[in-house]
Amino acid sequence: MKFFLLLLLCWSMPVVAEPLLTEKRSFSSDNFRTFSGQRIPRIDVGWQSYGTLSPARDNVILITHFFSGSSHAAGKYQPDDDTTGYWDAIIGPGKAIDTNQFFVISVDTLVNLNVHHPKVITTGPATINPETNQPYGLDFPVVTIRDFVEVQRLVLESLGIKRLHAVMGASLGSLQALEWATVYPERVERLISVIGAAEMDAWTVSALEHWGTPIRLDANWQQGNYYDAEPPTEGLVAALALMTQQATHPSFFNQSPVQHQAMDQAALASIHTAPAIVSWLRDYAKERARYADANHLLYLVRASQLYVAGQQGPLLDAIQQIQARTLVIAAKEDVILLPYLAKELHQSLDSSGKASTMLWLDGQLGHLDGIAHIAQAEAALRTFLEE
Amino acid sequence: MKFFLLLLLCWSMPVVAEPLLTEKRSFSSDNFRTFSGQRIPRIDVGWQSYGTLSPARDNVILITHFFSGSSHAAGKYQPDDDTTGYWDAIIGPGKAIDTNQFFVISVDTLVNLNVHHPKVITTGPATINPETNQPYGLDFPVVTIRDFVEVQRLVLESLGIKRLHAVMGASLGSLQALEWATVYPERVERLISVIGAAEMDAWTVSALEHWGTPIRLDANWQQGNYYDAEPPTEGLVAALALMTQQATHPSFFNQSPVQHQAMDQAALASIHTAPAIVSWLRDYAKERARYADANHLLYLVRASQLYVAGQQGPLLDAIQQIQARTLVIAAKEDVILLPYLAKELHQSLDSSGKASTMLWLDGQLGHLDGIAHIAQAEAALRTFLEE
Repeated sequence: MKFFLLLLLCWSMPVVAEPLLTEKRSFSSDNFRTFSGQRIPRIDVGWQSYGTLSPARDNVILITHFFSGSSHAAGKYQPDDDTTGYWDAIIGPGKAIDTNQFFVISVDTLVNLNVHHPKVITTGPATINPETNQPYGLDFPVVTIRDFVEVQRLVLESLGIKRLHAVMGASLGSLQALEWATVYPERVERLISVIGAAEMDAWTVSALEHWGTPIRLDANWQQGNYYDAEPPTEGLVAALALMTQQATHPSFFNQSPVQHQAMDQAALASIHTAPAIVSWLRDYAKERARYADANHLLYLVRASQLYVAGQQGPLLDAIQQIQARTLVIAAKEDVILLPYLAKELHQSLDSSGKASTMLWLDGQLGHLDGIAHIAQAEAALRTFLEE
Repeated sequence: MKFFLLLLLCWSMPVVAEPLLTEKRSFSSDNFRTFSGQRIPRIDVGWQSYGTLSPARDNVILITHFFSGSSHAAGKYQPDDDTTGYWDAIIGPGKAIDTNQFFVISVDTLVNLNVHHPKVITTGPATINPETNQPYGLDFPVVTIRDFVEVQRLVLESLGIKRLHAVMGASLGSLQALEWATVYPERVERLISVIGAAEMDAWTVSALEHWGTPIRLDANWQQGNYYDAEPPTEGLVAALALMTQQATHPSFFNQSPVQHQAMDQAALASIHTAPAIVSWLRDYAKERARYADANHLLYLVRASQLYVAGQQGPLLDAIQQIQARTLVIAAKEDVILLPYLAKELHQSLDSSGKASTMLWLDGQLGHLDGIAHIAQAEAALRTFLEE
């Protein structure tokens, strides 16, 4: 049970007190122009908020979400929801990100992984192109972290918001947060990067590619044209199994509820029978695949692979633009975005004369420590947001 | 170039002085009974040796090979070969494993990955079953590390060899070496485990499974029945790309000859175009796939997944059997068999009152440090073999 509970923390926190309630809203915009210069006739994204926007609109904290996340950063949609948003431990009345003080807002990214989740609103390959009445499939343009930021900017501007007291995100969300501070330096006062990076290197680009490989090999994938046929579920499940394992660490993964048997008799008897721990991981990934779309996963991989702060490089030129003070929070045992990547971000800020503080999370969860153990940063977050 | 040279070290060392020459030999045996109780009508394996067997047959060192390796542990087949065996740095006249003193022997495993290499002799799914005149495919029984050891025992006994001065192996080879010391304790005087483990845990079993996933998803795989059709090359290449990356470490991988471009313009322009570093890794894996068989890879994964010393567990019962003194050599940055696994082997020996010494290799290669940087252990090996 422990394993499941902890993994669930990835997108939800168990409920303790009176829940913070939130509502999913929708934003749309026509003729979105991507960073690569392509046109998307219409985009729709979901967003949600917590707390009250001050009359001067100067109390805004933007939360940018991770690869398999959504704008559901905290709270519940209904009082009897089983779970809360993923960072409920730090977002709410009286919490580190105090919603009595701040207006906290989060936006579903383009090409959101869980496009079929009833509470996710996104635009990507699985969306119907209004000009053809067919799903885009791979005709959807490659989108970048910059595009996610531009969509967030449009949402914020629709609310009259120009400045951010802070922008904070974990993992893929950390890239978006950094992009904000780089491209709109005069609008971002504080940057909080959690289990993040400043740019992708050869190792990480290649490691991310392996996530998409099983999808591309699945015969049902059909070069992305599967929306009127059987989807590439096997490939998607394999991708999510790999991601699920890598989001943890052996010291945690080895506590999985199906204990690995030193000598798995069924797996010895037949090459067709996977070891029990493998079947368990696959079943777990199947659950995760329920709302996910395979093409969206490929687009998220690509957006990640293309990242360098400012989306052009060299990195230090981009870092030079930043005006925000920065808090870099990293997980010691991270095997997805290895700890040297967060350290590199901190050091490039530091060597560029920017104010940056580094905070290490303890834990056995690996990458997921940045979600499940974020409460360790509570005091640091309070201080950082008040300074 | 540096990257290629270093990776080549995985199975070959650049030549320096007068080369040690060796010859591939063949061994066969009828009615091999597997650990799981199944019969293989006939097995054929290759082997090779260095140095001279003493009249008392008491100077034998057995080298057990890694996942993608073969019995070509050192030396050359022909004086003008471009490369040598993988541990040529420590095996040869006057070297740490001195072939003026020792008779060094190595045997191709069953289900050897590179079944199509002209110098590999093995028996596995790609072999013709003499009773059906068809390739075994997935009718080949699951084989274990114990089976590899039993085949080696048959080869050694055919030469009248009963005792081993030492058994030494890296990675998959370390499992075979440990199995020798566990199952034939009275025959093994010294055990040298390099980048190894005592048993597989949930993390490693699952991580190994991901290697085989792309093969099983490749439509050409056809449940292993591809020997009279197009083989699952795409899946095999994807598997080898994942293995190749994981056998290294970011500090080395990021020096790859195709430098990753912070913003890959071709990958931005089209979802169909992989980032340059990914194409490079795939091309490299294609080269590795030339002699490999996809089913053999799946069987090697399974043999690895099923490993615990003694092939039954609990581990400490097996460790208790060992009489050999042990040298455990590990790589600090290993991401395939994580360093805690080698430490666990050393500690279980130590806590069982067995003589064990631990030696850490420095390097930036990760798992491959155990092959490419083995010369760091030269002095320790000399001392260990003489004591």
